[in-house]
Amino acid sequence: MVTLSTSSTLCSFIGIMLPQQINFGYRRKFEVKHARCGGFQIKASVKTPNKDDNSLRVTTSSILDDFVFRQNFTIKSYEVGANEKASIETLMNYFQDSAINHFKTCGIHRGGFGSTKEMIKRNLIWVFTHMRIEIYRYPVCDEVVQVEAWMSVAGKNAVRWNWLLRDSKTYQVLSKASSGCVMMNKLTRKLSKIPEEARKEFEFYFVNSSLMILEDDIKNIPKLNVTAADYICTGLKPRWNDLDINLHVSNVKYIGWVLESVPESILMNHELCGMSLEYKRECGRDSKLHSLTAICGANNNNVEFYHLLQLEDRGLEILRGRTKWRPKL
Amino acid sequence: MVTLSTSSTLCSFIGIMLPQQINFGYRRKFEVKHARCGGFQIKASVKTPNKDDNSLRVTTSSILDDFVFRQNFTIKSYEVGANEKASIETLMNYFQDSAINHFKTCGIHRGGFGSTKEMIKRNLIWVFTHMRIEIYRYPVCDEVVQVEAWMSVAGKNAVRWNWLLRDSKTYQVLSKASSGCVMMNKLTRKLSKIPEEARKEFEFYFVNSSLMILEDDIKNIPKLNVTAADYICTGLKPRWNDLDINLHVSNVKYIGWVLESVPESILMNHELCGMSLEYKRECGRDSKLHSLTAICGANNNNVEFYHLLQLEDRGLEILRGRTKWRPKL
Repeated sequence: MVTLSTSSTLCSFIGIMLPQQINFGYRRKFEVKHARCGGFQIKASVKTPNKDDNSLRVTTSSILDDFVFRQNFTIKSYEVGANEKASIETLMNYFQDSAINHFKTCGIHRGGFGSTKEMIKRNLIWVFTHMRIEIYRYPVCDEVVQVEAWMSVAGKNAVRWNWLLRDSKTYQVLSKASSGCVMMNKLTRKLSKIPEEARKEFEFYFVNSSLMILEDDIKNIPKLNVTAADYICTGLKPRWNDLDINLHVSNVKYIGWVLESVPESILMNHELCGMSLEYKRECGRDSKLHSLTAICGANNNNVEFYHLLQLEDRGLEILRGRTKWRPKL
Repeated sequence: MVTLSTSSTLCSFIGIMLPQQINFGYRRKFEVKHARCGGFQIKASVKTPNKDDNSLRVTTSSILDDFVFRQNFTIKSYEVGANEKASIETLMNYFQDSAINHFKTCGIHRGGFGSTKEMIKRNLIWVFTHMRIEIYRYPVCDEVVQVEAWMSVAGKNAVRWNWLLRDSKTYQVLSKASSGCVMMNKLTRKLSKIPEEARKEFEFYFVNSSLMILEDDIKNIPKLNVTAADYICTGLKPRWNDLDINLHVSNVKYIGWVLESVPESILMNHELCGMSLEYKRECGRDSKLHSLTAICGANNNNVEFYHLLQLEDRGLEILRGRTKWRPKL
């Protein structure tokens, strides 16, 4: 829960100032909310990391003394895959849910997936442009994990979401992820600039803009074509239950299609440890897709692939990506 | 959490006695566990229903003074569908999860989806034979719901799971469901009798065998064929992430395929209010399926359909079902 002390007056005063320039004395006051599992909290204080854990060091200081939202999730039996561990889609769902709940806790959420008042006025919704995730350990059924989510500026017309997934007991980092989001008009399905009025609603919650939990690497992903692909899966199409509340295929569902062209021997004997996706075009309810995979490299039993999702009829690119796989223990 | 006072000695003493014959003085003692959201509890006491709520009356007395497991779930943003309400798959996932957690709380769960020690020794897993669900109101995002789950006898080689889904604040019943489960050998994929040693592990937790929350109605569902179908969807196949920890397509995933052959005008303008499914055969990782739907009847804008999922190559029946739809408000 958030108690507002200065509300919109402060936001309009701040204008487009970067967060580090904000006088922290004016910041909104937070009431920390705890729950044993499944609950969430927002907190400005730093959780002291374990000094023996190298993976934690990157997250200290300047990120965590800013607006970081924390939410606990208990891995449910239906969220684990064939390997008895949380699926990659489950982690992505948690990240998306925490971003929405961050907006809710800040009191600026008015509906849909993180839509604010000014966005709804203009029929604007958020869409992901790219996503990068690294997974160090997949949590198992019944494990309680904590997601830390924060938002930062990414140019004039985009925002960046960053996430850390932690073991809720040891605070060990299990996964890191970073993404870019822009606005799209729900009616025209065209990308939109971020209106100044909408930006003012959330820019107050940006953390230090110079810090990214994972650097973008999508520029290095080439576009695949059919002749270069080692594996192709055809006839893929969205199911009714792949649609989210914007009647838009959720970005998380695309992962399932990417995995469809990964060889079964890899799915059975390896686990996904890294993924970069660049979303190029929206997939409609009636779209038919091809999923293409090409071997990018292999080293010490680790394997890397390039991926492409394209429309069956015109070959238009929906998504390009890269995945990294390590042998299962 | 469960503290055991008499444990296996009592179970072997009880043998095949029906639950109502058990001397309640010997029953295990329960430690009630509460959590604000996402937690669960097991409790023998009765929650007094609201007298104005007819749908509650059926659940009083004899069911609720027995072994009923309760678990709270908070509807997440990724568990709602295009209509902004929890999807039918979400409710089914909650039911399945609560059944597994019932076994865990009883201390008899040893792995997988509700497998006990004696089941694991024999490579046995649980599979659903049929499922019936009625939905009176779909919960929305962030709503906290409570699932009540209990198990009862269903002949010599099956058990029945019953579920009530309630609004956690008002205790109004939002949904009821009932299912039949049998055992299958994980290696041979053949159905198995319930071994006496395995039955002894869980029969102690059966509630009054005469009470069913929803009567079976699967006998009245005819087998559809291609000529009788009004809508057919072809080319359906399991995705890698449709597989559960038994490398078995989860029964919940079949629902998505059933919905694929329901006309889009119904999906857009109606909501599913009842469903009966009879699982006839297992769907393999490489299966290709056809989904068939036939109009069964219509009355006051309510519509009923018959359904069939069949294998593309040999036409073998995977599932037959019936769904009921009411106009969206």
